[in-house]
Amino acid sequence: MIAFARATSIHLARDSDSLAIQPIQPFNHSRPMSRPWYSVENINELPSPSLLVYPERIEHNIKRMLAIAGAVDRLRPHIKTHKLPEIIRMQMASGISKFKCATIAETEMVAACGAADVLLAYQAVGPNVKRLLQLARKFPGTKFSAVVDDAQAARALGETFAAAELTLEVLLDIDSGMHRTGIPPSRAAVELYRFVNQLRGLKPGGLHAYDGHINQTDVAERTKLCEAAFSTVLALKTELLKAGLSVPKVVAGGTPTFPIHARRGDAECSPGTTIFWDFSYTDKLPDLEFLPAALLLTRVISKPGTNLLCLDLGHKAVAAENPHPRVQLIGLPDATATGHSEEHLVIETPRANEFKVGDCLYGIPRHICPTVALHSEAIVVKDGRAAGRWKVVARERALTI
Amino acid sequence: MIAFARATSIHLARDSDSLAIQPIQPFNHSRPMSRPWYSVENINELPSPSLLVYPERIEHNIKRMLAIAGAVDRLRPHIKTHKLPEIIRMQMASGISKFKCATIAETEMVAACGAADVLLAYQAVGPNVKRLLQLARKFPGTKFSAVVDDAQAARALGETFAAAELTLEVLLDIDSGMHRTGIPPSRAAVELYRFVNQLRGLKPGGLHAYDGHINQTDVAERTKLCEAAFSTVLALKTELLKAGLSVPKVVAGGTPTFPIHARRGDAECSPGTTIFWDFSYTDKLPDLEFLPAALLLTRVISKPGTNLLCLDLGHKAVAAENPHPRVQLIGLPDATATGHSEEHLVIETPRANEFKVGDCLYGIPRHICPTVALHSEAIVVKDGRAAGRWKVVARERALTI
Repeated sequence: MIAFARATSIHLARDSDSLAIQPIQPFNHSRPMSRPWYSVENINELPSPSLLVYPERIEHNIKRMLAIAGAVDRLRPHIKTHKLPEIIRMQMASGISKFKCATIAETEMVAACGAADVLLAYQAVGPNVKRLLQLARKFPGTKFSAVVDDAQAARALGETFAAAELTLEVLLDIDSGMHRTGIPPSRAAVELYRFVNQLRGLKPGGLHAYDGHINQTDVAERTKLCEAAFSTVLALKTELLKAGLSVPKVVAGGTPTFPIHARRGDAECSPGTTIFWDFSYTDKLPDLEFLPAALLLTRVISKPGTNLLCLDLGHKAVAAENPHPRVQLIGLPDATATGHSEEHLVIETPRANEFKVGDCLYGIPRHICPTVALHSEAIVVKDGRAAGRWKVVARERALTI
Repeated sequence: MIAFARATSIHLARDSDSLAIQPIQPFNHSRPMSRPWYSVENINELPSPSLLVYPERIEHNIKRMLAIAGAVDRLRPHIKTHKLPEIIRMQMASGISKFKCATIAETEMVAACGAADVLLAYQAVGPNVKRLLQLARKFPGTKFSAVVDDAQAARALGETFAAAELTLEVLLDIDSGMHRTGIPPSRAAVELYRFVNQLRGLKPGGLHAYDGHINQTDVAERTKLCEAAFSTVLALKTELLKAGLSVPKVVAGGTPTFPIHARRGDAECSPGTTIFWDFSYTDKLPDLEFLPAALLLTRVISKPGTNLLCLDLGHKAVAAENPHPRVQLIGLPDATATGHSEEHLVIETPRANEFKVGDCLYGIPRHICPTVALHSEAIVVKDGRAAGRWKVVARERALTI
């Protein structure tokens, strides 16, 4: 018995939402509805565990990102979710020219795709300072920028770029309440910005404020917290302008606050997870209405007891930083994990007797971003068939530099 | 201020232990004791986060594995911990000729190293059946074997190998209490073994019994549980022999029960973590006395508040399936994690003020095996210097096959 015949339906985009975002066309399935969207005809040819990606749904999610952003120049997608050049190119074909990254390898991948503008939203220290310079030299057609929150780190960057007679745009990284990185919006932030402004090799590019701590399901509450946190960033911007400093842009938020910053229109938005979606955000952020566009293929490899199935979906193949369920198995919503090791996921379900060793299941990961990084390639599903493979290029920590 | 100057000492091997294992030479530091064993002179050249490996300590751990095993032919190390051809070759140079794997890629890597004997301790289903045949064809100098616990899976393997006029040795996978995979030692197990015995393309190779649920710190308790679980496997073996079936070998246990199975001498032992060790096993299994031989290099990338440091050691660089602490920072034993995201680890420590952005820290992961799989290469530290890089070959899920 093949598991995908028993799928539950997946939440599809509606035409409107509470944030008055420009509606987009409902997702148009290009295949007969008799087969669920995720099922792969030639599934028996595919090894497991595997990452499956669905370009039609990725396109839909890109369109939705554009609709929420309202204008393409307000969009600077984070690429850490997918790490795939093919998706950079799909986004570029949709008019997106600016990207945000967390690693030097991701930054190189974006530049190698010919993107016009890439922000390394991660303070460069150690050898990464020189690597960033090497990137700027290797890809003169791409505008690079980076964030800083520390005077010494800024000085090291400035000296390195000045010595090469280049100038790097840097955004001051602002801690608007997450307490992960950044400098609080404060007098010290004004001083640091001024310091950056006078450093040779650097020029101030504005502010960066990631508010990943604001992810409440209730849209009104999320909006209120987001606006309150961001008001401190805007106040800092006002201070900087008053001091005669240039603040070309503000890059703000991630996925949960994307529609909030977008609606205001005074910041560039950097959603990441929106490209593939996952069940954590499906549950937590129903107002966002993106479509799952990446799944995991797994097989039953053993039946180690009554009501038990062992799947080949260990934590070397699905991200494990969250509690179970770490994956939502389509068709088995009530399955519970009884064990998870490197290459095994044991689940308990009263329907175990319907499965035999070798049967396939599809799963939506709880957190897609680190899950993608566990796979060296993605299997591309088009028109219901596995039609190719994309190399997850930026899962490496270094490409050529 | 450089963090490694403040290291706490790491537990070193003693000459004896409670299991009366043949003593080996205490670890001989080849460098002056003025520098701690893990410190890397040219640390400033190394990007972070990085995986560091220490071949002198790996050699020590191999010697200790041999000492515990008592005889080299009782040793069949699991390679899932390191996934490195260089370590396969070090083990082969020590006389080890048999290996155990969990994936087709690991199995290919071992065969490509010219190893004599490799066991895929993972039931092959779907395309992996044919992939295993392809391996057997590509590497005729290596003896392949595999485990089964299901009649249909066995039949598929047998048909595939018989059609190619080859014979695969299969071990019956026994569930001795872990309930992850395997068939309980029972009448049904005898019948399945008999079924395998009469299948063309297969020949019975004995039994496989992984007892990963037995990992108690108390050696007496662990021994008692291990022996009780294993007695059911031995009883099955007796049944099989009585039935006139051949049971060439039993492969038993992982790291925690390694010394127990080794002392008995009637099974091949498959420790994995022993090659690198980690702080989970240092804490949990002090009787084993292996040396940490793989560390993580991380840098302070931000100081986001009083007593806070943000390190570049997100859960894309250190395994996260366990609760915090997911890494033990050398010199900061009291640090507690306040946040962990894909590329960031925020820790709280009253000593945060001693660090500046860019400072290095060394960390021992809680679980080294999935941590290694997060890195595409390991930096090799010899004589206190980073001296090369090893590609983590089998972190891929497919090599050439």
